[in-house]
This record gives sequence, structure tokens and C-alpha cells, in this order.
Amino acid sequence: MFEHLLHNSESWLNAKGPDSKIVISSRLRLARNLKGSVFSNRCRLPQKYEVLDEVNAAAGKIEQLHSAHFVKMEEISQLDRQFLLERHLISQEHTLAPKGKGLIVSDDEKISMMVNEEDHIRLQVLASGFDLDNIWQKITALDDELSRRLEYAFMPDLGYLTACPTNLGTALRASCMLHLPALVFTKKINKILELLTKLSFTARGLFGEGTQALGNFFQVSNQVTLGLSEPELIENLSGIVNQVKDQEQIARQNLLKKYKFTIEDSVWRAVGILKHARLMATKEALAHLSMLYLGVDLGIIKKIKPETINNLFINIQPAHLQKIEQRVLREQERDYIRAHLIRNNLGGKYV
Amino acid sequence: MFEHLLHNSESWLNAKGPDSKIVISSRLRLARNLKGSVFSNRCRLPQKYEVLDEVNAAAGKIEQLHSAHFVKMEEISQLDRQFLLERHLISQEHTLAPKGKGLIVSDDEKISMMVNEEDHIRLQVLASGFDLDNIWQKITALDDELSRRLEYAFMPDLGYLTACPTNLGTALRASCMLHLPALVFTKKINKILELLTKLSFTARGLFGEGTQALGNFFQVSNQVTLGLSEPELIENLSGIVNQVKDQEQIARQNLLKKYKFTIEDSVWRAVGILKHARLMATKEALAHLSMLYLGVDLGIIKKIKPETINNLFINIQPAHLQKIEQRVLREQERDYIRAHLIRNNLGGKYV
Repeated sequence: MFEHLLHNSESWLNAKGPDSKIVISSRLRLARNLKGSVFSNRCRLPQKYEVLDEVNAAAGKIEQLHSAHFVKMEEISQLDRQFLLERHLISQEHTLAPKGKGLIVSDDEKISMMVNEEDHIRLQVLASGFDLDNIWQKITALDDELSRRLEYAFMPDLGYLTACPTNLGTALRASCMLHLPALVFTKKINKILELLTKLSFTARGLFGEGTQALGNFFQVSNQVTLGLSEPELIENLSGIVNQVKDQEQIARQNLLKKYKFTIEDSVWRAVGILKHARLMATKEALAHLSMLYLGVDLGIIKKIKPETINNLFINIQPAHLQKIEQRVLREQERDYIRAHLIRNNLGGKYV
Repeated sequence: MFEHLLHNSESWLNAKGPDSKIVISSRLRLARNLKGSVFSNRCRLPQKYEVLDEVNAAAGKIEQLHSAHFVKMEEISQLDRQFLLERHLISQEHTLAPKGKGLIVSDDEKISMMVNEEDHIRLQVLASGFDLDNIWQKITALDDELSRRLEYAFMPDLGYLTACPTNLGTALRASCMLHLPALVFTKKINKILELLTKLSFTARGLFGEGTQALGNFFQVSNQVTLGLSEPELIENLSGIVNQVKDQEQIARQNLLKKYKFTIEDSVWRAVGILKHARLMATKEALAHLSMLYLGVDLGIIKKIKPETINNLFINIQPAHLQKIEQRVLREQERDYIRAHLIRNNLGGKYV
């Protein structure tokens, strides 16, 4: 399975979805808990295994998951868990205390289910680009299939019951990953992030809650889960993402008009460093790759394909590097191999 | 004359002299004043012109200066004066209030005389590399020739009289321009600079007094001019320069042994930025060129010649750029043209 994932470049980050120059990916997540079982954080290990077996059995019968992989988190290495985190298939929390925790993931990585994370079930559907309506159809069909085989904890007045009250109701989190280098470059990003917060959306970094905005990526999601229907929640997010996308588009055009020399300089410097450096940390690599990605979109860089950059965004991550090299690497080794991988992929002259 | 200087790459910075990988150039300067004339800073303009005429007439008769250029500072533009400063032929002071000030410069730029700077005569002889003994022979021969034609202000007990008492006695300033990137990289430079000061030497930046150490260049010179003979002063400087040179040599070898990856990374990053940037200020360019120069010496970079880098060290300077472009340039234009010149000379791929 890991070998397959490592070479799967047709995932959510393939830059082929709608508006994918700015909206990298769309994601919906439903939290569900089983009636009669204690919530995961209060649940003893034997019952966790029961929940895991029950969910796995139900999922195994669903057509959309017929070729899915069923993973017990305790049976794989910490490196493999880290690898799944870097692919956005599991959360940080799911990499820790792995006993009784599970993951079900479809072959194309677009559907995944964490079992016994904060809730018994965290069902996720991903798509490349700006494609919320499409994945809403997919996730609701999956949820219907599951609900026929599992009895959910649900109350008519409160909706779906969840371990954390902020997820109560629809238990839906809708989010889009946006790449906003021009809004960062022109220093307009902070105003936009403030506005998002005022309108009850949150903007987080590349790896969700509590992570920094690396590589100019921002994950925008709904804060509210209660009092609105799922389609309304999705429509609201859609509306705000559309606005931010337009602002980024305008900012990119302005860069070429008003800051032509400085943006060209910044993009080319990023290329120069990526093609020549011998040691590079993940954070720095993400920043330069982000500028390069912008440069390709603006037509400043012509010979590098967006897919190449997207693959690098994923593969330069620490666990990915180690899976590629098939061995555990210390930090300085990683920095060396990361720089080498980047030069190799971007046609650096002196490899 | 300026056209000639602009294309003169056989100057003191041609990297062909002894030990020139570390000791870029050697310089001796004698201060002389004419008996019976008021010191320059107290001298009225008509008398300055008299001094200038008298010195020019004497210099014109000396064989070593038979093809020299005689320049009246007030007759050339501020840009040209700046250009001469960048070539280390005149001082900052000599670019200001140009009336009555003169410059005599040999065709190869190795001999120059400022007239009516702080002293009536500042005679300078330069050589590429570590070559103090050789230029001492040259400057003392020139001084003898001049003293036959001009009456110097001299007192047997005090020696040569100078406008500033710190130059009294021999009125000799001996200096070497050292390139010390490895001592800077390994953070050993500050201890060495402290030691130099304790031993009564001074270390200044690329443009002498009051200038910063740009591009890891340090100009080391004697502080004392009194109480020792000229050969003793030169021998003292020679000794200390030898020691610093050895320390830099050791540091360079250590870089390859102990810091192989980080030094390779730093050198290649400098190359990447130099070959790709679209805007570059002088200070940044000097820093990257310094790393590149070190990289060539360490064998990390093989396809770039030291002469190419030496020419860039000179030609990227603001007045040089404007002379090359044959027009006055604003700062951002200069940064753009400087980056272009560097890419052109280093074979940057996307020019």
C-alpha cells in the first residue's frame, strides 16, 4: 500500500481540478459516533477494537470502498504514520497512541476514514481544485451507505452527537486549501484573514489546526456546524472561497503591472536557490516552491510544469523523503537529500 | 582616459600577483608637502592652483610617469570622480570640493598621485597580490625623482611634515587588501581584528577609513608612521599579513574538512542567486561574489574563472555601471542592470 501511495501522483494535489491555480483542493469531513459505544477519548481499549471491527466490517461492504486499504495504526511504524499525515489522510492526533485506531483509505486517496480518532468515525472526501458540490454528493452517498450498516448517535433536536460540542449538529467541516502567494507578497493577506474570522470562518496552515501558513497555503473552513443545513454550510464556504480566489487573482495581475521587477526578481531568486542549494529545510523549500508555482502561473517561468512542483510539495516532506530513500534519515541528511531531489526534479545544472 | 580605464583589466585586481587568492593587492602611500606652501586644508584657491601646477610640472618630467594622465578634479563630472574612487585611485575626500585638486595616474593605474588632498601630494603605488618589497622599490624611486624637482617640508627631528600629525615621520602608509571569507564564515575574524588593533595595525573596509567590510575584504595597514624606518614598517606589516594569510588558509582547509556540506551549500546558493536574480544592490552582490570567489579557490566551482569574478567586483559598482551604460542611472535601474551584467558574465541561463 505505501509503495502505491508513494507513486500516486493522481491524488488531490494534481492541479487538474477547477480553479486549481489558486484553490488547490476541496475537502469535506463528517464526524460520526456509534450509538451505545463510549466516545473514543473515554473508551477503553477492548471496546475501541470492537468499534474498529464494526466500522471496518460496515465499510468493507460499501461499493465505493471495495478496493480500499484497511490499516491498523498500531501495526505500522511511526514513519508510516507520519507519511499518512503528510498526505493529509490522517490527523496529527491519529499518529499518536495508535492502539485501537484505524484508517480506511481508497486506492486513489480521495476517500478516507479515521476510526477512533476524536470521534469513532471521521469520514473525509477530497478533490483536486474547487469542487465542493461534487464531493458533497460523494460524501453524502457514503454516509447513507454507512448509516444503513451502523447505528449513529443522533438526536433529532441536536443532530449528530460528537465528542467535541463545536462539531455538533451537521458534524460537517468543509474546507478549501488556497494558495495565496500574491496576497502575501502584497501584504493584503492579514486583512483578508481578519475578515474571514469575523464571518465565522477559520484559516489555518497546511496541516490544519495549530499549524503555520507554510508555503503561502491557507486552509479555509467553516466554524459553524449547527443551525444550518449541510448544503447551506457548503454554499457559504463556496461564496467566501470565491471571493478570496478573486482577490488573489486581482493581486496576481497587479504584481505584473505594478511590481514587475520585484516579482520577477523574487521568482527567479527562488528558482536559483532551488536549483543550486545543497541543504534545504522543509519550510524553506515550501516557501521557494510557492514562489516558483506563482512564477509559472504568471508566465515568468515557462519550462517547469505545475505537476512537477506539486509532486515536490508532497515529496520533500520528511517522512516522504525517508520512504523514497527507504531508510531512516537524520535531519541534516534529509536537508541534503531534499536539496538533491529538488535539483533533480527542476533540472538543476550541477547535480 | 576613462574609456581606457574602463577596459583595463590588467590592474591591481587581476589576481595574478603573489598569494593573490588571499592577498588581493598591496599598496604604499607617501604623504608629502611643499615647503613654503600652506597645507591644503588652510590653503586658498590661487595657491592651490600654484601647488597643482608645480607638482604637475615636476611629475611630467619623471620617466615612470611619461604616459600618465593629468586630471583636474574640477574639470570632470561627479560621476567620473566617483568612478576614480571606485577604482581606488582617489579618496572619498578627493571627490568633494574639487576645485584646485588634481590626480596624476599612470596608464596601468599602478602609480597615482592625488594633489591637494589632505596633503599637497599623496603618492600611491599599487600591485596585485602580496608584493610590498617590490612596490617599496618603485615608490622610493619615484619619491627620489620628485624630491629632486620639488622642495619638501621636512625637519630632521620630525621627518616629513604632514597636515595630520598621525602621518608625521615617514608619512608612509603601507596596506594590503585581504579577502578573508573563511575567517568570516568560521567566525574567527573578530578575534583577529582585535589582535591587529592591539599590535597597532588597523583593519578597514573596501574603501578605507570609515567604510564597512563589504564582500569579506579587509584592508590592513600600519597605524604607526613615526620612530621606525620605512623598511621596518613594511617588514612589520608583511609579518602580520603573512600570519593572517596563514590563518585564512587554515580556515579554508578546515571548511572543506569540517563544514563540507554547509560551505558547499553557501557557495552554490551564492551562484544560484547571482545567476538568477533580476535586481541586486552592490552590497549583496559583493557578498555573493565573495562566496563564489572562495568556492573557486576551494575547487567547489570549476567553470568560472577568477578574473571574471575580479572584473565583476569592480564593474558592478555604481559609477562603473553608469560608465559602462554611458548614462546616469537611478538606483533601481542600477540594481536591474547590475543583476543583468552579473548573469551575462557568469553564464546565467535565462538572461
